[in-house]
Amino acid sequence: MTNKKPLIFVTNDDGYKARGIKLLVDILKPMGEVVVVAPQTEMSGKSHSITAGLPLRLTEICIEDSYKEYALEGTPVDCVKMGFDNVLKRRPDFLFAGINHGANTSINTIYSGTMAAAMEGCAENVPSVGFSLCDNDKNAPLDGCLPFVEKIIKEVMTNGLNDGVCLNVNFPTGKIKGIKVGHQAKGYWTEEFDKTEQQNGSTIYWLGGEYHCTDKNPDADWNAVSAGYASVVPMQVDFTAWRELPQTKQRFENL
Amino acid sequence: MTNKKPLIFVTNDDGYKARGIKLLVDILKPMGEVVVVAPQTEMSGKSHSITAGLPLRLTEICIEDSYKEYALEGTPVDCVKMGFDNVLKRRPDFLFAGINHGANTSINTIYSGTMAAAMEGCAENVPSVGFSLCDNDKNAPLDGCLPFVEKIIKEVMTNGLNDGVCLNVNFPTGKIKGIKVGHQAKGYWTEEFDKTEQQNGSTIYWLGGEYHCTDKNPDADWNAVSAGYASVVPMQVDFTAWRELPQTKQRFENL
Repeated sequence: MTNKKPLIFVTNDDGYKARGIKLLVDILKPMGEVVVVAPQTEMSGKSHSITAGLPLRLTEICIEDSYKEYALEGTPVDCVKMGFDNVLKRRPDFLFAGINHGANTSINTIYSGTMAAAMEGCAENVPSVGFSLCDNDKNAPLDGCLPFVEKIIKEVMTNGLNDGVCLNVNFPTGKIKGIKVGHQAKGYWTEEFDKTEQQNGSTIYWLGGEYHCTDKNPDADWNAVSAGYASVVPMQVDFTAWRELPQTKQRFENL
Repeated sequence: MTNKKPLIFVTNDDGYKARGIKLLVDILKPMGEVVVVAPQTEMSGKSHSITAGLPLRLTEICIEDSYKEYALEGTPVDCVKMGFDNVLKRRPDFLFAGINHGANTSINTIYSGTMAAAMEGCAENVPSVGFSLCDNDKNAPLDGCLPFVEKIIKEVMTNGLNDGVCLNVNFPTGKIKGIKVGHQAKGYWTEEFDKTEQQNGSTIYWLGGEYHCTDKNPDADWNAVSAGYASVVPMQVDFTAWRELPQTKQRFENL
């Protein structure tokens, strides 16, 4: 890299007006040229979904020399695609997503729009990090995690990340004891649908549920956060269960 | 398992009326009690997204002794959650998703609603398989792949799958040379947005794009299918890049 300022792409899944993304941008502005393309409206739980066959509208929110902000009527992954292919003049040097309002630990990672954006950046070989505060209250204080967000960003901007790998960073609320690096915790949801009987006799359902962690390892992301640590998990976009290949070959190749 | 018929859950992302799911159900009906909960409308590209904060409507399509079919105004993963928690009387023995109209090889896996449904089943430790025909034409002939779908289903119903592992099965069009077991191919999309200028001066965008495979290994799913083989890839819901853990610990735990 030359002395040129790095080009930093930012998105989230809570929408461009969310507090978390504003605080992330405040940290990043002194570090480079920052371009935000974030959803117009909240897109939590949208995972890696893309908008195919429907129109996407892009709105300029703020255009300055070293800071540009756009809102897109689309999902977080739409934002990354729109940013990389239609807004930025070149491939960005880094992608940061968040700070998400809500946990993206354990199995929640696969539902997360924030982590999907980071995975999309990583699939394009751009060093990418998703940040989340493990508190669904949109007014939960974010101050405690900001020094850690800054330290992690500086490390990634200095040393990069390996191709095909991104980071999933989750913060506890309250005082943060330090950083633990570990794996995606094993766990599951028991869903409970709230039912509403309608006047016409039909029923509508509302998705709810409760998370259960089955992982005893203290380095597992859910456990690290529960113990008051920031959790960092390196993640990949290759879903292959490599250790299963020999057995799977044996079973299926000669059917 | 007793002599009781196995309970088989079926879904897709093309909607309950799609040809692919009808053919899959035809294969499964003689093998057990089949329950379909599939999206009311097409949900391609919805990945692992869930409908939180919006109502879900469930419609009975067909209720027979050993076959039940429902349509849900939701995503494929909503269908799995609704099926497991609200429709089935017990945890199903197997989940089969598809047959999807369109390829779910390589990076497409992460956008796929069909594979998200299989991954959701797998997260619940139900042996799950997603089937896809690599042809976006909804009228593409499915006959060629049906004997392979049946053979793979029988193998899975006889020997199960390890917890946390599901199968991603993709078929070529035309004559199938056999089955190759391998990994998710490395590759990426170059997006190209089609633009429409509107009368009010604003622009709307339509997501398009072209896929590029960068994987030379003949066992990689995209390459296997391109060579005329059915591809079987074991997949997992753990996105941790385990090989990166030691280096990541060193870099981030003492920041």
